[in-house]
Amino acid sequence: MTAAQASISRFPVPELKNLPEDLRARILAVQEKSGFVPNVFLALAHRPDEFRAFFAYHDALMEKEGGLTKAEREMIVVATSGANECQYCVVAHGAILRIRAKNPYVADQVAVNYRKAEITPRQKAMLDFALKVALSAQTIGESDYAALRGHGFSDEDAWDIGAIAAFFALSNRLANMASMRPNDEFYLMGRVPKSG
Amino acid sequence: MTAAQASISRFPVPELKNLPEDLRARILAVQEKSGFVPNVFLALAHRPDEFRAFFAYHDALMEKEGGLTKAEREMIVVATSGANECQYCVVAHGAILRIRAKNPYVADQVAVNYRKAEITPRQKAMLDFALKVALSAQTIGESDYAALRGHGFSDEDAWDIGAIAAFFALSNRLANMASMRPNDEFYLMGRVPKSG
Amino acid sequence: MTAAQASISRFPVPELKNLPEDLRARILAVQEKSGFVPNVFLALAHRPDEFRAFFAYHDALMEKEGGLTKAEREMIVVATSGANECQYCVVAHGAILRIRAKNPYVADQVAVNYRKAEITPRQKAMLDFALKVALSAQTIGESDYAALRGHGFSDEDAWDIGAIAAFFALSNRLANMASMRPNDEFYLMGRVPKSG
Amino acid sequence: MTAAQASISRFPVPELKNLPEDLRARILAVQEKSGFVPNVFLALAHRPDEFRAFFAYHDALMEKEGGLTKAEREMIVVATSGANECQYCVVAHGAILRIRAKNPYVADQVAVNYRKAEITPRQKAMLDFALKVALSAQTIGESDYAALRGHGFSDEDAWDIGAIAAFFALSNRLANMASMRPNDEFYLMGRVPKSG
Amino acid sequence: MTAAQASISRFPVPELKNLPEDLRARILAVQEKSGFVPNVFLALAHRPDEFRAFFAYHDALMEKEGGLTKAEREMIVVATSGANECQYCVVAHGAILRIRAKNPYVADQVAVNYRKAEITPRQKAMLDFALKVALSAQTIGESDYAALRGHGFSDEDAWDIGAIAAFFALSNRLANMASMRPNDEFYLMGRVPKSG
Amino acid sequence: MTAAQASISRFPVPELKNLPEDLRARILAVQEKSGFVPNVFLALAHRPDEFRAFFAYHDALMEKEGGLTKAEREMIVVATSGANECQYCVVAHGAILRIRAKNPYVADQVAVNYRKAEITPRQKAMLDFALKVALSAQTIGESDYAALRGHGFSDEDAWDIGAIAAFFALSNRLANMASMRPNDEFYLMGRVPKSG
Repeated sequence: MTAAQASISRFPVPELKNLPEDLRARILAVQEKSGFVPNVFLALAHRPDEFRAFFAYHDALMEKEGGLTKAEREMIVVATSGANECQYCVVAHGAILRIRAKNPYVADQVAVNYRKAEITPRQKAMLDFALKVALSAQTIGESDYAALRGHGFSDEDAWDIGAIAAFFALSNRLANMASMRPNDEFYLMGRVPKSG
Repeated sequence: MTAAQASISRFPVPELKNLPEDLRARILAVQEKSGFVPNVFLALAHRPDEFRAFFAYHDALMEKEGGLTKAEREMIVVATSGANECQYCVVAHGAILRIRAKNPYVADQVAVNYRKAEITPRQKAMLDFALKVALSAQTIGESDYAALRGHGFSDEDAWDIGAIAAFFALSNRLANMASMRPNDEFYLMGRVPKSG
Repeated sequence: MTAAQASISRFPVPELKNLPEDLRARILAVQEKSGFVPNVFLALAHRPDEFRAFFAYHDALMEKEGGLTKAEREMIVVATSGANECQYCVVAHGAILRIRAKNPYVADQVAVNYRKAEITPRQKAMLDFALKVALSAQTIGESDYAALRGHGFSDEDAWDIGAIAAFFALSNRLANMASMRPNDEFYLMGRVPKSG
Repeated sequence: MTAAQASISRFPVPELKNLPEDLRARILAVQEKSGFVPNVFLALAHRPDEFRAFFAYHDALMEKEGGLTKAEREMIVVATSGANECQYCVVAHGAILRIRAKNPYVADQVAVNYRKAEITPRQKAMLDFALKVALSAQTIGESDYAALRGHGFSDEDAWDIGAIAAFFALSNRLANMASMRPNDEFYLMGRVPKSG
Repeated sequence: MTAAQASISRFPVPELKNLPEDLRARILAVQEKSGFVPNVFLALAHRPDEFRAFFAYHDALMEKEGGLTKAEREMIVVATSGANECQYCVVAHGAILRIRAKNPYVADQVAVNYRKAEITPRQKAMLDFALKVALSAQTIGESDYAALRGHGFSDEDAWDIGAIAAFFALSNRLANMASMRPNDEFYLMGRVPKSG
Repeated sequence: MTAAQASISRFPVPELKNLPEDLRARILAVQEKSGFVPNVFLALAHRPDEFRAFFAYHDALMEKEGGLTKAEREMIVVATSGANECQYCVVAHGAILRIRAKNPYVADQVAVNYRKAEITPRQKAMLDFALKVALSAQTIGESDYAALRGHGFSDEDAWDIGAIAAFFALSNRLANMASMRPNDEFYLMGRVPKSG
């Protein structure tokens, strides 16, 4: 936690030692698991109550079982964050997507233009719905749900897809507003085989 | 909890008796206070974990003290929800705004076009920032923060304004995706003097 | 006619006694019927010839018989004025819509997002056409007329729908340009039963 | 009045002999003056009351004296009609603009991109305001009026500029909705010297 | 080559005598054929290498044989240049379109709103594809190619249509960036019969 | 040159041995230098004349000396290609940018949101201009050139910036229209130190 870290957000970034115990525990756990602390944890620690709600919401949507794989959930994040021009989310979740999909190409493809990505027609339908929630949720109607059902998605899957897009509508705006900086570690993650 | 309530969301609405205890307690408390249960509580109860995170986040932003009055926080909700064409949020938070501002006109004005609303220049600057976060957060820059400071807002106030706009970017998308229906009670709230 | 009335428009508002006789007669008649003078009459009286043409056009479209009910004509006004962010027209015609439809909810619903309003599929088709004329008339084609016919609208009805949307494209722009202020009376009209 | 004329509008076009006397007189007068009947007169004759109001409004704005020349008024029509992609209005009023400005180039320049047209800085400011009324009237504010004043326009001139843009917002939508066809005569008018 | 010619571009315009031999030859040839030098040749001569590549590309797309007539190729140029608000390209290629189509009306119709132009359904399908490449190429998909095939266009024709739209995406941007001025000669070309 | 290569474009991809000698030479040279053949060379070889003009234009803009470094030229390509959602150009030129800038992070930052990228204010001004040419060239005016001059750019630099943005307006549209696929090699290039 050095002075240089102030640049990860345009708002003050608290020192780890000054954080409430539950936040510090969560941050140490992710550091243990990932080898570094993703900057979003430090930037949001500026507001402990919002931090707790944010990550509770995140985990409820991203860590659960269901009709979508974890890679597909990340695909929704990367595609909608690309449309919202959120640098932090594209870079950080692009890394997670590469790892979860075990595919070094799909994140960049989906971030730039998911219509041209090498994904399945079912995944394209999933992203059509997610992008509509992200960009014009006021026009979502029954024909959009029917399109999902045509690809085997249940209504619960539809909620998941839409709710992830909606949650990252929040997340992308926070990151852009705070000029949150992605950690250098993310850029290379999942691009080379582990044995490389 | 009758069959008619199914129409408050296109997703299943659980019966109160089947909800986890903490959700039921929260819902009964709001019913006690307001005289009815706002539909968002019933619609989100479909997903208890998301319900908990949603209202924790909401309360962290809307119930706190700080440089913004509670009426101003609601003003941000109404203005950004109008821009996102979210019927539930405009109608429900319009009611709350009328009550908190003790003003029967301001909510409709702000929902349609805040630039023409009878609010202070400081409040217009607040809504300029909020709308920019809502609609093009990727372009937020230092000049936007400077404009807020010119009206006496601190950086902490700026976070509040932006975070409320960001949270309702999520909320508006959920409500539109689920076709959440505002309760009839909201439409008239705050429009007539209590003694009337 | 007091000094305070200057704030109903950013342009000069003439005194009633100085108006041409036909304008004064029209204004007194509306005051007799409504109990107050809607500000649009006073604001446009600034230009008597334009006043005459404006209300002649308005009456030709809004007061006639035909395939659309008067409530449906107001619905078109409220929906397109919402899309054009015209505070005066949403508030004033929202009141008229509530009264004509004998429904205290429909105006707010239609103003924010007609796709989620509790109206008939035929009325939604009517508003689809109206909104397309309001926002992208250059793309109107035979398929749009076919959609109307599929809901039982004649070509004369189509003209009515489109012409009302077109007339309020004018009206909304005048009101926004002049910062026309809705009368306080409109906000509560049609929200409570007459016997209330 | 031959069968071929039906194609000047997708709605029925009445025969001259069947029109109310005042409409017929107006049409014969314009034919006398111009040498042909502009199709807008025949297309709108489908609805006599709307015809009367339309041309009364048109004349009130376009034929009056004031701070704008008649050529400048037509310039506003051509620029906003270009932005609204209205073929009838660009072609017909382009002809009138060429004649009134005695300039065979200005109409095409203004219709495509007024920012690059060979007009005065004052005229560019006039068109900046007109285009803002045409495309985003909800954002018009005092700084827009100040910009006009900086070029010597009075508030009455500002009303004229905005009202013409607003009236053609109506006119453009009617013409696009009815697929109104410009007369062949307009294309060449004002392009060659009279003595040529 | 007089001083007045400097105004044909906001960048320096070289004198003919100072140009590389191949540029001068090309310019003299076009002058011989057209009777004047279209300003785009003089404006781009500022950069000889870019001039050579630009016209080589232009000729490869516009002068070849294939499923599209030369008039249809110009129709694509005029429609997409209208959408891009490029004055030079609309005026100059409008003239060429009038001549190649032997039709004094079609260029103005297509420039303002091709959907209302008096062209064939096949040509409208061609322009639908061209405009989609011009304005949202990222959304082009197999259904767009299928629509072209439904009107008898081959895949090679589709490439031609899209590549012309893409090339003028470049050309329109150069002309707007340099404020390139159309020659006076273009405005009247193709409007009157040769024998007139 | 195997069957699998057909998937690099939705149009036929010629075999190297069947290409005109100059195209084959160019392709072999790039293969020699890069270790693989970027797919754009194979996809455009479908049309030899367009291939020649395309790469001549590319080289005239990207390989020259001048006020912009080669890394800055690539920065313009990546930023505008991101805005145009062109997968091929973002991935391929992102690789070149990483190498030329000797910076493994800048390409992803610029592709998603250049306003938040770790580049100089001068480079941000360069990208402001480039993005305006890419997305709304019709509004470019003297104030945009003045902003560039304020950062030390000459008019010749301005042409370079705008012309690169304009050329990739073409390139992005071709790649999206043909669903051009980036080579796998690009994704990792420039991300790890050579000695790594």
